[in-house]
Amino acid sequence: MQNDTLLRALLREPTPYTPIWVMRQAGSFLALAQTPELACEVTLQPLDRFALDAAIIFSDILTVPDAMGLGLYFVEGEGPKFERPVRDEGDVARLAVPDMAKLRYVFDAVAMTRKALAGRAPLIGFSGSPFTLACYMVEGGGSDDFRRVKTMLYARPELLHRILAVNADAVTAYLNAQIEAGAQAVMLFDTWGGALSEAAYLEFSLAYAKRVLAGLKRTSGGRIVPRILFTKGGGAWLEAMADSGADALGVDWQTSIAEARRRVGSRVALQGNMDPMALFAPAEAIEREARRILEAYGPGPGHVFNLGHGISQHTPPEAVRALVDAVHGASVAAHAP
Amino acid sequence: MQNDTLLRALLREPTPYTPIWVMRQAGSFLALAQTPELACEVTLQPLDRFALDAAIIFSDILTVPDAMGLGLYFVEGEGPKFERPVRDEGDVARLAVPDMAKLRYVFDAVAMTRKALAGRAPLIGFSGSPFTLACYMVEGGGSDDFRRVKTMLYARPELLHRILAVNADAVTAYLNAQIEAGAQAVMLFDTWGGALSEAAYLEFSLAYAKRVLAGLKRTSGGRIVPRILFTKGGGAWLEAMADSGADALGVDWQTSIAEARRRVGSRVALQGNMDPMALFAPAEAIEREARRILEAYGPGPGHVFNLGHGISQHTPPEAVRALVDAVHGASVAAHAP
Repeated sequence: MQNDTLLRALLREPTPYTPIWVMRQAGSFLALAQTPELACEVTLQPLDRFALDAAIIFSDILTVPDAMGLGLYFVEGEGPKFERPVRDEGDVARLAVPDMAKLRYVFDAVAMTRKALAGRAPLIGFSGSPFTLACYMVEGGGSDDFRRVKTMLYARPELLHRILAVNADAVTAYLNAQIEAGAQAVMLFDTWGGALSEAAYLEFSLAYAKRVLAGLKRTSGGRIVPRILFTKGGGAWLEAMADSGADALGVDWQTSIAEARRRVGSRVALQGNMDPMALFAPAEAIEREARRILEAYGPGPGHVFNLGHGISQHTPPEAVRALVDAVHGASVAAHAP
Repeated sequence: MQNDTLLRALLREPTPYTPIWVMRQAGSFLALAQTPELACEVTLQPLDRFALDAAIIFSDILTVPDAMGLGLYFVEGEGPKFERPVRDEGDVARLAVPDMAKLRYVFDAVAMTRKALAGRAPLIGFSGSPFTLACYMVEGGGSDDFRRVKTMLYARPELLHRILAVNADAVTAYLNAQIEAGAQAVMLFDTWGGALSEAAYLEFSLAYAKRVLAGLKRTSGGRIVPRILFTKGGGAWLEAMADSGADALGVDWQTSIAEARRRVGSRVALQGNMDPMALFAPAEAIEREARRILEAYGPGPGHVFNLGHGISQHTPPEAVRALVDAVHGASVAAHAP
């Protein structure tokens, strides 16, 4: 493997510089995600253009509930929807871990991409967290107030727990199959856990993320498969997340990465945390912001540079190039032995 | 004044129970907000139905930029828009503190409501924070990524600073005029400061909130006018906010109020922090959640019960009644001398 800086940084091992990768969101390109050849091509594109230190498989966050039979579809300008949302006791009782054969297109894409990468950079597999999947499943799509899923949480917590238990088993199987297919690191995206109170986050989101992490294969081909846990808006709960079984925590841009490092100590690596919107500024401003974040993390291992969330589709390509160059160039000194 | 529990709690003075109030959002009811008689009536409605400990003037968060001549209008289902957003150097140069006479409808509503309340409960005045107003002014309306205002922040920070300086002076004059008209406490809503990185929050949002707070009249009719500062998503920055000159900080529901109290100590009172969506659960669940928050805050003064943000317009009235009863009933013991 020519470039394993990501895998080393996630395990807090020394690297010559701070690795960087970025996430594109697949939203509404389901046909693309479901055709392994195309998913592979789209996954590799950013690596052909930029000196990124990892690839993340191009897929959708809602493939698992789709395989559960909920009927995922997209409405232009409105995001994902489910034909058969999970709302009442009957819906919940019918819910089951899907046959992983239905998700074979994802595992085929992973295998194909891993092969095509040929060791250039590691391949990251991913899934939505059990709670984040439950948000879409109960709401029937995106939501800006999560009224249905929160009403279930407060009024019928046992129903939500049952959904989350099924989701946790499904996500565990899904990520393990990605690892078997060749994913060298995995990331759990808890996009909506940050919409909960602390008490509810611990009980309904983190508990099930832990269950997933505890069930994951630890190694593949003799090498540890690092796990990254990211809760958008979860900066207040990093201590609890650091005890979840994750090797690294994603940090959103609202959280000070200096403070985050102080709080988690040497328990986990940190991945983050530039505001994706900073990429709309000129190169000098991007470099300044990148340096600010590298300096805030400080010297030593355990930092993967990343945006606080997915990159905007409107981002100018030259901005990504400026960022990658800035991170690689400016971080060498901090990693000198 | 029959019920001054809110004013006392905001100043961390003893009260017989924990006061509670709720905020309705005025969005898209501009005609209502601009007619003092109607604004007064709508402000008093919740107090006629529920045993709330404060009234907040019914108004819109964007009255100040509208008075600046930006042309506020509402598109159904899309929220507020400005006809003339502030995008370039020329727009910024033209910006000025508006003549407060243009906002007289707000001050008339405050005076009328204060009189109608006749001491039943204190009246809270409010404004959007300089940064939150700037978000709408630059974006030209709501936004889910704040691309325009953040691009200005990173690429042309001096332009944004100029907008924020004008906004801070305008908001100071606006809140002082509300105090003169009869507002007994004031609240600064920094709805979008939480979308920033910590470094950007301190420089572009909190610095200008501080400037406003420093310029506010301290007393009215011989009584201190407490100031509340609320940054949605700002839980990570409570220590800095506690040094802003505010008497009390609003706390969103994602932040643990126990942890928040530990962090701010006796410097400020705390207002919060139930998830508005918990009000869609049955009465027992609402009571349980209210008690959980009261117990998390713990005994002693300095707590105003509130939702983490505005109440949903779909909230069942009986849920509000259950909440108010639960807070008043359950909090008496914690306030026993």
